[in-house]
Amino acid sequence: MAENEIERLIRLLAKLPGLGPRSARRATLELLQRRALMEPLAQALTDAARNVRTCSVCGNLDLRDPCAVCADETRDRTLICVVEDVADLWALERTASFRGLYHVLGGTLSALDGIGPDDLAIPKLAERVAQDGVKEVILALSATVDGQTTAHYLAERLEPLGVAVSGIAHGVPVGGELDYLDDGTLAAAMQRRTPF
Amino acid sequence: MAENEIERLIRLLAKLPGLGPRSARRATLELLQRRALMEPLAQALTDAARNVRTCSVCGNLDLRDPCAVCADETRDRTLICVVEDVADLWALERTASFRGLYHVLGGTLSALDGIGPDDLAIPKLAERVAQDGVKEVILALSATVDGQTTAHYLAERLEPLGVAVSGIAHGVPVGGELDYLDDGTLAAAMQRRTPF
Repeated sequence: MAENEIERLIRLLAKLPGLGPRSARRATLELLQRRALMEPLAQALTDAARNVRTCSVCGNLDLRDPCAVCADETRDRTLICVVEDVADLWALERTASFRGLYHVLGGTLSALDGIGPDDLAIPKLAERVAQDGVKEVILALSATVDGQTTAHYLAERLEPLGVAVSGIAHGVPVGGELDYLDDGTLAAAMQRRTPF
Repeated sequence: MAENEIERLIRLLAKLPGLGPRSARRATLELLQRRALMEPLAQALTDAARNVRTCSVCGNLDLRDPCAVCADETRDRTLICVVEDVADLWALERTASFRGLYHVLGGTLSALDGIGPDDLAIPKLAERVAQDGVKEVILALSATVDGQTTAHYLAERLEPLGVAVSGIAHGVPVGGELDYLDDGTLAAAMQRRTPF
């Protein structure tokens, strides 16, 4: 039997992260029973596919290039925060705690997966740092082996360019109970204690 | 700030069951980074919205009316299985254990939510049973209070029409461990024991 419209919709929805075959089926039924949602969703997908672009400076996704962050003249251009992907950039922007610029690497170095510096936006980062009067690069990478390997690599590569390199703090999450934390986090929090 | 294309896509995706605001954001990022998925998904939504219809006989969703089940001449037309919604019909069809017809109620009776017989496809069910030479109606409703209330109501309403009314079995799920089952299921399984 050829795939029909219903099966096709289920198959495509199942490719979204967070939806498996079962929840894609449920979502499809929900959509078919609430038709009012389908046309706007199709339109939103088409519009986004057509209008959203990757910022040629930092790698953010936005409707314009350079993106709203890079184009914002009020932001501190001497600070670049390096993140793994756009989701991390958006997460930091939601906190409104950083007023510099960003640089999206597009992943982390990984010997196992054969991902080297030239597979990520690392050469471009070095270029930005060398040209733009950047004073500090903040590494906001995952606290995983690959994330920290990448951070060390970047620190070594960027420091000869005369820029300060820092990393975001590791420690106890705000609201977290010590009892439920893993040993690594607790040890890091103890080691990096600060005067009260 | 007016809602832009990215925010709109996130907001609409968040309306799907199984996706909250956070996973909708993740799904949107995934889509924007894998553009090849967006256009087919938009097309699938448009096609499905245009071509999928509700079967005027049983309430199933399909590309044709009557649906493929109702139109299938090899199925046993003397048997009607009553389900709450289309998801239940599809779930039963996947088991390939039933070769009769279906009837989708569109919910259950609920005094609390003010849902009476005429809000569901109950009059239509009575009509089908009265006209079509149906011999048995199988009630495949949820084992919830509302589901069982609806089952009792249907049994009372259908029996005067000279049709046998049965319910699907309750008991221990296949593969289930007794220890993890709730008391109600265990008690039902014990009470309805069958000769080995």
